[in-house]
Amino acid sequence: MQGTRESQPAAYTPTDRTVPTRAADRASYDKELVHAILDEGYVCHLGFVRDGAPVVLPTLYGRVGERLYVHGSTGSRPLRMTGKADPGLAVCLTVTHVDGLVLARSAFHHSINYRSVVVHGTAYDVTDPDERRTALDALVDHVVPGRSRDSRPADKKELAATAVIRLDLNEVSAKLRTGAANDEPEDLGLPHWAGVLPLRKGYEAPVPNPDLAPGTEVPDYLAALTR
Amino acid sequence: MQGTRESQPAAYTPTDRTVPTRAADRASYDKELVHAILDEGYVCHLGFVRDGAPVVLPTLYGRVGERLYVHGSTGSRPLRMTGKADPGLAVCLTVTHVDGLVLARSAFHHSINYRSVVVHGTAYDVTDPDERRTALDALVDHVVPGRSRDSRPADKKELAATAVIRLDLNEVSAKLRTGAANDEPEDLGLPHWAGVLPLRKGYEAPVPNPDLAPGTEVPDYLAALTR
Repeated sequence: MQGTRESQPAAYTPTDRTVPTRAADRASYDKELVHAILDEGYVCHLGFVRDGAPVVLPTLYGRVGERLYVHGSTGSRPLRMTGKADPGLAVCLTVTHVDGLVLARSAFHHSINYRSVVVHGTAYDVTDPDERRTALDALVDHVVPGRSRDSRPADKKELAATAVIRLDLNEVSAKLRTGAANDEPEDLGLPHWAGVLPLRKGYEAPVPNPDLAPGTEVPDYLAALTR
Repeated sequence: MQGTRESQPAAYTPTDRTVPTRAADRASYDKELVHAILDEGYVCHLGFVRDGAPVVLPTLYGRVGERLYVHGSTGSRPLRMTGKADPGLAVCLTVTHVDGLVLARSAFHHSINYRSVVVHGTAYDVTDPDERRTALDALVDHVVPGRSRDSRPADKKELAATAVIRLDLNEVSAKLRTGAANDEPEDLGLPHWAGVLPLRKGYEAPVPNPDLAPGTEVPDYLAALTR
């Protein structure tokens, strides 16, 4: 696919930081897979360095093509630091889904089935009003697709209180484990149960706000998620 | 409770790093709450600094009292770096649960209900054989309580291939959001649905390994989780 006029490269280019030192067979640079893992998550873990020490904070995010956006109060530490940093703040943004618990006969081969994406790069303060609007819509639609069109957009005061930072998807890798437990051949005769305990996914029924006007119906885009 | 002979202080002491710059009402230093959040998780996000840049990796963990343990291949980067670091490796370990999606009438007040714990500190390589055994049991029992007694313990070769690091719970905070959407009073008349979409929790039925001997029953500690 590479080199054709209309199409984008289908994979990220591996770098020293995105090639794992072990279990390299679990790594992937496929863009579609990376996008799918990112789009399924709600919270990323954003890492940055403050006074020489690492800080990892959970935060919402949104994706627009090959760009990730994180937002927050203009007073929050990583956002304030990004605004002051020139040319930006070195970050690592990680999203992980736990799919199942893997029980092997041996303690050593216990594991989990998971899918994760790690993004290395530089976060930049977003100041362009149009890009800020696009990013904020993406953040709301990331929580519930279609929701940005069915809520009041941010007003001037809210926009002024909100910082938005951007991280481009360049240095990116996915890592995943799927399937059954991998025991040593000599352990297969042991009496211990082995297999996978899958984690339940999905949603419970929506809980209306106590101050919601009686008769307000659950919108279609929400009902679709819980069907 | 502090100062009595048998009891431990019930809370961690806040520090500059664990007092948030905003939403301080969502922060807690209560040890019981911190332990409960940690014990409910499967994967932590471990942050460290490599060549001046932050790295955030998902990894399993276990808790023994006021100590957290992380393990991995002796070849993995953070574990190798901890072994070489003197007096240890500066890390930040974060565990987050997403409990629900919070839909407000205004885009600005969209949020999620979550519970997180952030631990700052120094990770040390664990070399004492007894502590290593205790840590590895805790890691297996963290995945499924009771499982370490029902699997083959690590042998010499497996122990030699496994690095264990320890992070003490000293500089710790929890942060959480619960409850309904908080809209501005002037937005309450807007027609948009508002409320919380809770995420489903729990497990699906266990999936036996394809190589499991026919008739091997699901153990009680596993059946208890899925009832």
